[in-house]
Amino acid sequence: MGDFYDQLETRSADQRAADLFGRLPAQIAHAKARAPFFARLLADIDPDGVTGPAQLAKLPVTRKSDLTDHQTAQPPFGGLTATLPSDLYRVFASPGPIYDPEGKGKDWWRIARALYAAGFRQGDLLHNCFSYHFTPGGVMFETAAHALGCPVFPAGIGNTELQARAVADLKPAGYSGTPSFLKTILEKAEEMGWDHSSLTKACVSGEALLPPLRGALKDLGVDVLQAYATADLGLIAYETKAMAGLVVDEGVIVEIVRPGTGDPVPDGEVGEVLVTSFNPDYPVIRFATGDLSAVLAGQSPCGRTNIRLKGWMGRADQTTKIKGMFVHPRQVADVVGRHPGIIRARLVVEKEADADVMTLHVEADGAGDGQAIADTIQSVCKLKGRVQFHPPGALPNDGKVIEDKRA
Amino acid sequence: MGDFYDQLETRSADQRAADLFGRLPAQIAHAKARAPFFARLLADIDPDGVTGPAQLAKLPVTRKSDLTDHQTAQPPFGGLTATLPSDLYRVFASPGPIYDPEGKGKDWWRIARALYAAGFRQGDLLHNCFSYHFTPGGVMFETAAHALGCPVFPAGIGNTELQARAVADLKPAGYSGTPSFLKTILEKAEEMGWDHSSLTKACVSGEALLPPLRGALKDLGVDVLQAYATADLGLIAYETKAMAGLVVDEGVIVEIVRPGTGDPVPDGEVGEVLVTSFNPDYPVIRFATGDLSAVLAGQSPCGRTNIRLKGWMGRADQTTKIKGMFVHPRQVADVVGRHPGIIRARLVVEKEADADVMTLHVEADGAGDGQAIADTIQSVCKLKGRVQFHPPGALPNDGKVIEDKRA
Repeated sequence: MGDFYDQLETRSADQRAADLFGRLPAQIAHAKARAPFFARLLADIDPDGVTGPAQLAKLPVTRKSDLTDHQTAQPPFGGLTATLPSDLYRVFASPGPIYDPEGKGKDWWRIARALYAAGFRQGDLLHNCFSYHFTPGGVMFETAAHALGCPVFPAGIGNTELQARAVADLKPAGYSGTPSFLKTILEKAEEMGWDHSSLTKACVSGEALLPPLRGALKDLGVDVLQAYATADLGLIAYETKAMAGLVVDEGVIVEIVRPGTGDPVPDGEVGEVLVTSFNPDYPVIRFATGDLSAVLAGQSPCGRTNIRLKGWMGRADQTTKIKGMFVHPRQVADVVGRHPGIIRARLVVEKEADADVMTLHVEADGAGDGQAIADTIQSVCKLKGRVQFHPPGALPNDGKVIEDKRA
Repeated sequence: MGDFYDQLETRSADQRAADLFGRLPAQIAHAKARAPFFARLLADIDPDGVTGPAQLAKLPVTRKSDLTDHQTAQPPFGGLTATLPSDLYRVFASPGPIYDPEGKGKDWWRIARALYAAGFRQGDLLHNCFSYHFTPGGVMFETAAHALGCPVFPAGIGNTELQARAVADLKPAGYSGTPSFLKTILEKAEEMGWDHSSLTKACVSGEALLPPLRGALKDLGVDVLQAYATADLGLIAYETKAMAGLVVDEGVIVEIVRPGTGDPVPDGEVGEVLVTSFNPDYPVIRFATGDLSAVLAGQSPCGRTNIRLKGWMGRADQTTKIKGMFVHPRQVADVVGRHPGIIRARLVVEKEADADVMTLHVEADGAGDGQAIADTIQSVCKLKGRVQFHPPGALPNDGKVIEDKRA
């Protein structure tokens, strides 16, 4: 192995698309055959017809925010899994609670690719500070390390002084966990005068890594790269030594869609991360993560050819209470969908004399019929709303469909 | 599979002895060749000569209480491991800290046999409440469950209400962890009105299981059996449905010795548990656990033929401070060794008019030379001691070599 985990990372975009969309019909058929939820959701879908991004974009979305309801209705996994509970390897409970399945097989969460990109190689001891209890974080990185032939110290969370002592005694080559806890451990080691010089690389996740924190860790001797993963999907994207965005994992199809919808946005525009997984046990199709990101233009300087994400840019769920009524992003999308002249829209909520006021800002070519749009708002949201027109490209590119300015 | 995990459990004592002592010379040779600590410790031992219990009993003992010193002198494992750190699977840190290695391979800790005896079968979901962080408890029971084909919920410690909720939602077949935490979880489930009826079996460890606790768990619907395991050795012995002592694991040789020595006591007498392991990665020879137990006479009614232990009967390390000086069990053994007429001895420490007074109570056939023994005490312990004679069998059978009556 050299710079790359495998040859999948450097194939052409055409090869990748041919591979993934070539396998997609069978995966959709598998989901329909084995997972009752997808059998219902995709009842009218012919898997053989889903052969490219345009056809995929027409399939219904499954929202992470609805998982708890699905699981309550049909415990424990809402009918989304294709493997019997008795044939799974582990079961997890994330806050909610949302129950997450893990199937059998090496590196089931596909994190090894991210660890490899962060510099981990066979024999490197990994000091793993994700929790192993209830949530799958610890196991995700441990199974990845084992796939690379790396031994693991399952350190978990807490016990800062004991963590620093273990670093000094066991001399791990690298760390996984949140970046802020790594800083806490290294500073404790410095305070105690304990050696931490063995620890020179880290693969972090679970919180934002801002430049000052990355710089502080660099000053403490550690090169830190990020992995973007969730308890439903495993790896979605990962940072490489180029540190120029997060390269999408080879095992998933990522779309960026208008929040609250399943409609892909143009490349570069901020939207919700939607993932279709090829996992045989948990075959989620168009799973809306609730995270905002955007596709970066061009190719990573590291040589990996897959599309890149800008990283985590906030939460997509912008459901807001206005005059005592919930307004959902999908209602905004509904209004927009009924007026073909609208390019993009953003609902802004403000306080005027202690009353909630909402205005739909729309990008449109030329003038539109404001009264017709206002009528649609009233009809869809059961609330009055103003309409204000803007030229194309005038609204900010931040993924916001509803902006709450009342606070 | 039926009542037994494998055919090893029901072989004759002769077959078992022939198997274990047949493999012992190669294991000792392996330890000497690959583990520097054992190369030094057993430098003068010819492995081919160790073909039975009598020869094994002449080998030097390695005390758990000395592990921290060995590991500090030669980090991280004191030279006791036969596998390179980079080729291990996991590394743990138990309080001390003592670092524990885990090698590669299915059910490395050999706990599956105990889970099987407790009733676990393929497909049963295990709710595992041992910690996965730092210490190997969680992994021990998880890898055992996986060896049986059981999925695992890695619940860890704490979060009582979430634990009870997970039991209600995931419907585990059984539990592993401490028995007192199981009671806490089940009582919380009762309090919340949550169903815990799926959970009917448990394999517990880590603390004493007294009859009232076992009865309370039975009343809550759970049959609880114990496993005796340590972070150095994995499984040593396990309870079966007969609930008549703990059957020794098939992968170890257990001896019960006079505390502070390596001298086997007669069957039935309480002494320190000494284990010789056939583990290829951590080939400990005559490892003194620091735990007290005794061999139970006869065979388990469940049909398993290996010797049985009475369970945990206290700590063997009775080192005591007398008049400001430490007195070790091995010093008592040293005194006894110099006087062949002594069958058994017990040093009793008392307060008389605010001063420490120590008396060596000795079992002897006929009269002995009290003054000669007192002189030996003075010479070995640098302290004066009285001597009192008793007929054979008069001293209590509780493994105590030093009894401190001052408190």
